[in-house]
Order: sequence, then C-alpha cells, then structure tokens
Amino acid sequence: MAEPVKLIGCFGSPFVHRAEVALQLKGVPYELIEEDVNNKSDLLLKHNPVHQKVPVLLHGDRPAICESLVIVEYIDEAFDGPLLLPSDPHDRSLARFWAAFMYKECKDSMWIALWTDGEVQARAVRETKKNLTLLEGQLQEGKRFFGGDAIGFLDIAVGGMSHWMGVFEEIAGVRLLSEEEHPTLCRWAKEYAADETVQRCLPDRDRVVAALTPRKELYVSIAKAMATQK
Amino acid sequence: MAEPVKLIGCFGSPFVHRAEVALQLKGVPYELIEEDVNNKSDLLLKHNPVHQKVPVLLHGDRPAICESLVIVEYIDEAFDGPLLLPSDPHDRSLARFWAAFMYKECKDSMWIALWTDGEVQARAVRETKKNLTLLEGQLQEGKRFFGGDAIGFLDIAVGGMSHWMGVFEEIAGVRLLSEEEHPTLCRWAKEYAADETVQRCLPDRDRVVAALTPRKELYVSIAKAMATQK
Repeated sequence: MAEPVKLIGCFGSPFVHRAEVALQLKGVPYELIEEDVNNKSDLLLKHNPVHQKVPVLLHGDRPAICESLVIVEYIDEAFDGPLLLPSDPHDRSLARFWAAFMYKECKDSMWIALWTDGEVQARAVRETKKNLTLLEGQLQEGKRFFGGDAIGFLDIAVGGMSHWMGVFEEIAGVRLLSEEEHPTLCRWAKEYAADETVQRCLPDRDRVVAALTPRKELYVSIAKAMATQK
Repeated sequence: MAEPVKLIGCFGSPFVHRAEVALQLKGVPYELIEEDVNNKSDLLLKHNPVHQKVPVLLHGDRPAICESLVIVEYIDEAFDGPLLLPSDPHDRSLARFWAAFMYKECKDSMWIALWTDGEVQARAVRETKKNLTLLEGQLQEGKRFFGGDAIGFLDIAVGGMSHWMGVFEEIAGVRLLSEEEHPTLCRWAKEYAADETVQRCLPDRDRVVAALTPRKELYVSIAKAMATQK
C-alpha cells in the first residue's frame, strides 16, 4: 500500500497552491490539513520548527518536507506521472534559475510596487514591469506554457501570479500586469488558470479577496521595510 | 570530444568556490575566466544580464547557467563522477531545504551580526548562533560531512563558512563560530577545508583578507539596510 501523503496548508496561499497543483498533476491522492495561520497548531510547529510556515508535506513516517519549491521538486522525483521539471539537465537548470528569479527579485519588486507610494513605488513599478518582461521572454513562441505544451515546474513557480496578482492589484488599487504591456504573459496566465487540474486547487477569488483585505496594513509595513533594503 | 566548460569567476568569492568545488569533485576539466567585479566585462553582462554576477557556467554553446547552487545541481546532473546530491528523493529534498536555509536565514543573520552594533547586532548574534546550532544538527554522528562520508551538495552550500567565516570575523572583529559553542560544526569546517579537492580551489587566506578588508564600509551599509527589514 502506498504511504499516505498529507499536506499542511491554509486557505488562499499561493505557496500552498504550488504544492497542491504538483500533487494533482502527478495524480497523488493526499489529505489536506487546513492550518489556522493566526493560531499555529502543534502539528505545524512540530514539522516545520525552522520556518513555522505552510506548506508542509508529510509522506509516510519520514521527516516533513518544507518550502514550496523544494516540495514540488520532491513530488516530481518521488512519484510517477508526468515530469514537472524538464528531463534535460540544461533545461532543468534554466527552469530552476527562473523559478528562483520569481521567488526573489520578481516577488520582492512586486510587493513593494503594490504596497508603497511615491517615488519608492514608482521605481518598484518600473522594476516589476522589467522583471515581467524578462519572465515573459521565457515563454517560447507557439508553446502554451513555460514547460512547453504541458504545465511544468516553472509554470507552478509563477502560477500564483495568474490568480493572486489580480487579487492583490484589487486590494492595493495598483495595476502591474496588463494586456497592453505583457500580452503573452496575460495569455499564459489565463491558460494556466483555465487548466482543469489547476482549477481543482484554485481558491474562490471573492473569498481570497475577503480573506486577504484585512491584512493590507501588515502588507504595507512589510513592503516599507523591504523597500529600505533595495 | 567533450564540449568545453568555462567558469566566469573572480578571486575570493565563496559563491564561485561552490561551482569550482563541484567541477573539481566531478573531475570536469574547465577554464576559469577571472572577472574584475569593479569593471564588469561584456562577457559577464552578455551571459548573466539579469544579475550581472559571478559565477556563470558556460557549457558548449548552450545558454549560460547562473546562480551558484543552480550551477552545482547542473554539474551534478550533466557530468559523470560521484553524486553530489543524495540519490534518495527524500534525502535530496532535505539537502535542498538546508542549502536554502543557509542561503537565506543563516547568511542574512550572520551578515547583520558581523557588520552592525548595539542591540541590533546582539539580536543577530543570538539568531546566528541558533541557526548554526540548527545546521550543526544536520551533521549525523559518525559522518564526516553533511553528505555522509564524502563531500556533497549541502557541504558545498555551507562550504564557504569553513574558509570565509574566519576571514569576515577577523575583518569585523566579531566572533560567531567557536569550538566551545559549535564543536561539531568546527570539526566539519576543518575537515572540509583540509580536503585535497577542496584545497585546490580555496584562495589564499591572507590574500582574501587583503582583498575584502577595503570593502568593510560597503558591508556595513548593506548590513544596516538588511537589519531594518528583520
């Protein structure tokens, strides 16, 4: 019998979404354990004592796996099903490079662009748009996804953008991703969010807006601190 | 004939060291192209336009590979020789998790602990020591290295500590890693730095101190900005 797979997650997190999509694409049955991030459970603290964050993947009795992209790579390697990372080592390294780019530069500049104002914001908006152009350049002509004709590792790494970007833009009252400036990326975002497997683990948009809106003040304070380091 | 391998690097960088050790452990012949980081070459800007940083790996005519840990994984997958990452997917994910921990939390707290003062520094010193204890906990009893009996991916990710930590401590006049508090980690650091393959790509200590000392002011300003975000 296959060892049970459990995913500690929470509602509305783009990072948990990454792990869920990977499990769904691989056809791995799993139990989702919903965490209250405002009142962290002993289960979470036991299995992710270092970061105390979701997602956390439990597979059988072995130590938990944490960090969303580490989880996605694990799922790809530990289970049968379609390959999420390319099979060629060189293509695989490019996918990892751009996933790290999304995780660091791209996410940081977006966050500052969303939640600050004045000159700091204007600079971050310019940087974000430049980063989105770089990312868009990785979508090869004639291919639906970063991974080619099927959703792969980099699609999953960038995937949050397809659903959450609009949510954050709405709460912040800022527009970063537009058809006019990034038509190919917008086309990709629609295709990703419309995929049948992805849809199974995309949380309801209105509920996400309702859940995240009260955190606006927190987001602003985090973004201000981030901006001082740029 | 094997496609030529070129590494764009610079003197005294712990990140370039990672790529070099991986190539040396795999027995891959390569040409090291020394970059002047104060006057970046067209070659560097062409091959790493996103970050404009070393190391950059060129393998044949394919697009360059950037980011030290992405390069190490590529070298492991593209060339024969001893495996750097564990063969078991679960062990591999733990190595990736702790490498990311070193790259993010651990490095940041160390940097602030080295180059700030007062209460900010005291807090960062406490955090660094806690992080080093967490890292030390990954060295299994009876094993010489994080990777077991041979140097592996996590050793390479943490490897800079064995040589550069003492250099930075000397320049900053701060002590973070000591035999009294982290005996196992200190034992590991000595074994890593004494390894014959590693020694081939460890830069002369006195020359590193001389090269990095003039950058102290820059380090202080970076650390201050980082501290505001913690």
